[in-house]
Amino acid sequence: MLALDLGGTKILAVLVSRDGHIIDSERRPTLATEGPPRVIERLFGAVDSLLERGGLDLSQLDSISIAAAGAINYEEGIVTLSPNLPGWRNIPLRDMVRERYGIEVFLMRDANAAALGEQRYGAGRGAHHLIYLTVSTGIGGGIIIDGKGYIGHSGGAGEIGHITIDVNGPVCSCGNKGCLEMLASGAAVAREARRRITAGERSALTEMVSSNIEAITAEYVGAAARANDRLAQDVIAQAANYLGVGLVNIVNIFNPELVIIGGGLAKLGDLLLEPARQVVMARAFPMAAQAVRIVPAALGDDAGVLGAALFARSRGEPPK
Amino acid sequence: MLALDLGGTKILAVLVSRDGHIIDSERRPTLATEGPPRVIERLFGAVDSLLERGGLDLSQLDSISIAAAGAINYEEGIVTLSPNLPGWRNIPLRDMVRERYGIEVFLMRDANAAALGEQRYGAGRGAHHLIYLTVSTGIGGGIIIDGKGYIGHSGGAGEIGHITIDVNGPVCSCGNKGCLEMLASGAAVAREARRRITAGERSALTEMVSSNIEAITAEYVGAAARANDRLAQDVIAQAANYLGVGLVNIVNIFNPELVIIGGGLAKLGDLLLEPARQVVMARAFPMAAQAVRIVPAALGDDAGVLGAALFARSRGEPPK
Repeated sequence: MLALDLGGTKILAVLVSRDGHIIDSERRPTLATEGPPRVIERLFGAVDSLLERGGLDLSQLDSISIAAAGAINYEEGIVTLSPNLPGWRNIPLRDMVRERYGIEVFLMRDANAAALGEQRYGAGRGAHHLIYLTVSTGIGGGIIIDGKGYIGHSGGAGEIGHITIDVNGPVCSCGNKGCLEMLASGAAVAREARRRITAGERSALTEMVSSNIEAITAEYVGAAARANDRLAQDVIAQAANYLGVGLVNIVNIFNPELVIIGGGLAKLGDLLLEPARQVVMARAFPMAAQAVRIVPAALGDDAGVLGAALFARSRGEPPK
Repeated sequence: MLALDLGGTKILAVLVSRDGHIIDSERRPTLATEGPPRVIERLFGAVDSLLERGGLDLSQLDSISIAAAGAINYEEGIVTLSPNLPGWRNIPLRDMVRERYGIEVFLMRDANAAALGEQRYGAGRGAHHLIYLTVSTGIGGGIIIDGKGYIGHSGGAGEIGHITIDVNGPVCSCGNKGCLEMLASGAAVAREARRRITAGERSALTEMVSSNIEAITAEYVGAAARANDRLAQDVIAQAANYLGVGLVNIVNIFNPELVIIGGGLAKLGDLLLEPARQVVMARAFPMAAQAVRIVPAALGDDAGVLGAALFARSRGEPPK
């Protein structure tokens, strides 16, 4: 089975065995700003390399399954809109890939795929009601109810990064205000560090980027925090607090048994998760707060392709 | 079948036919401040009256089913905590009613019951993914996924009134901050009107309550708004805006096909719902915003008992 993850920064193409082992993989940068046609060419390029390297021809594959960053029309196989893929608006990706390779293609939203992957093979094994959150440049969510992926009435469920937690907060690229993503994502961490340094605060970060403040990323902030830089620690504590507030909302709504946190910012581990857990214990309903475990993801970048493969195996129905 | 709704202000006991018709009903004030033993006595009194008036004996009933305002431990049949029922903490209501009447008893959370009732008999007929919100003194929620009531891992799902929409907002009785309930409930409407009048603003409300500002309720504010009182209209518009923000969160998370709004404040109709719908159209993800209908509840106070009856009929499993 061939599975793809089309993200805002990278394309990952893998061959997956029936039991969820990745046999071979091919990774390319998305270079999303070049627009859909070039990105799709690179996607094809990754698939072609994988086929060639494996000495495979298409008759040996049942299908190609794609997890894509964006809002997906599941019935039509269309990427309707993607904040992280400029120019992607109503792109019929499923049919385009099917025409190119002549085999069946499945298309799903990346966070839904990652939730399925983690549930079957990763940190969510055995859990029935779980929420997967990817905290990286943006914040995405995938919902598993009763062991099944939940995509909502028209495939758009799980936009947990775009719940308002500060009604008077900054305007988000989605058009909403005070979204969790504006306050607790990797982009938010980098933005807040840059803002405070530009306002005159001192931090080891300034030296780390040779005074090129715009070059500060969440990774730099994380590194500085680990090296005991006070400003970096403050900024991460603030993001962790906001993340905790978002988790309170999730816990009070879903009373899940498990919340899995993946994505780049989650690599901070307990520096991010422990304060967030404390907010949940302090502010969520006690019964629900005590019931939930909040854990890091286990599969890293592979969660999406593994979930996409499961989706294809269940013929496009959310797999149990 | 005998079904009960134990709320913060009233107890409703009904006899329900198998096809969901209410044959007879008995209503009593809860007088919740008198504490659990007296409230439970009144609950028994309502049941006894209903049995007596119908000339029924217990052998003619399969079971008694109760929808209660509060957090419920479904497995043990316990009201673990109830913000609207002072003193209710780990009250084994199911066993107490079973001991009294000697027949099977089911216990569930009231908003979950109302969601089931509306889905089967009311505004939610035919919908598979729906959210029920009761907007009265507080705000409660019930979630229907794939046609089934969703109660979460330990029975606590649906506390949609207690999602933070203003991270810097006022402290809620639940311990969280800036909860939807603190900003968009009937209590919030009354509180805000009282605050503004106490601060010196003029309103027809002052005369309506003979200058006894503490007597202002959401009902008065609604009546004043309909009579074109500017302050009352402002206060309701503000609550409707906050309600809209809460609905944006629900729509972005669940992508539901339907949101049903019940409870006392919903009697304001489009004065409340229309501005809230506009916030959803302006701020939620377009695909999800376009997919959802936001409608008033159809069953009024009967939704809870009808849902409780369905719950009993499915032997305590969330009915399809």
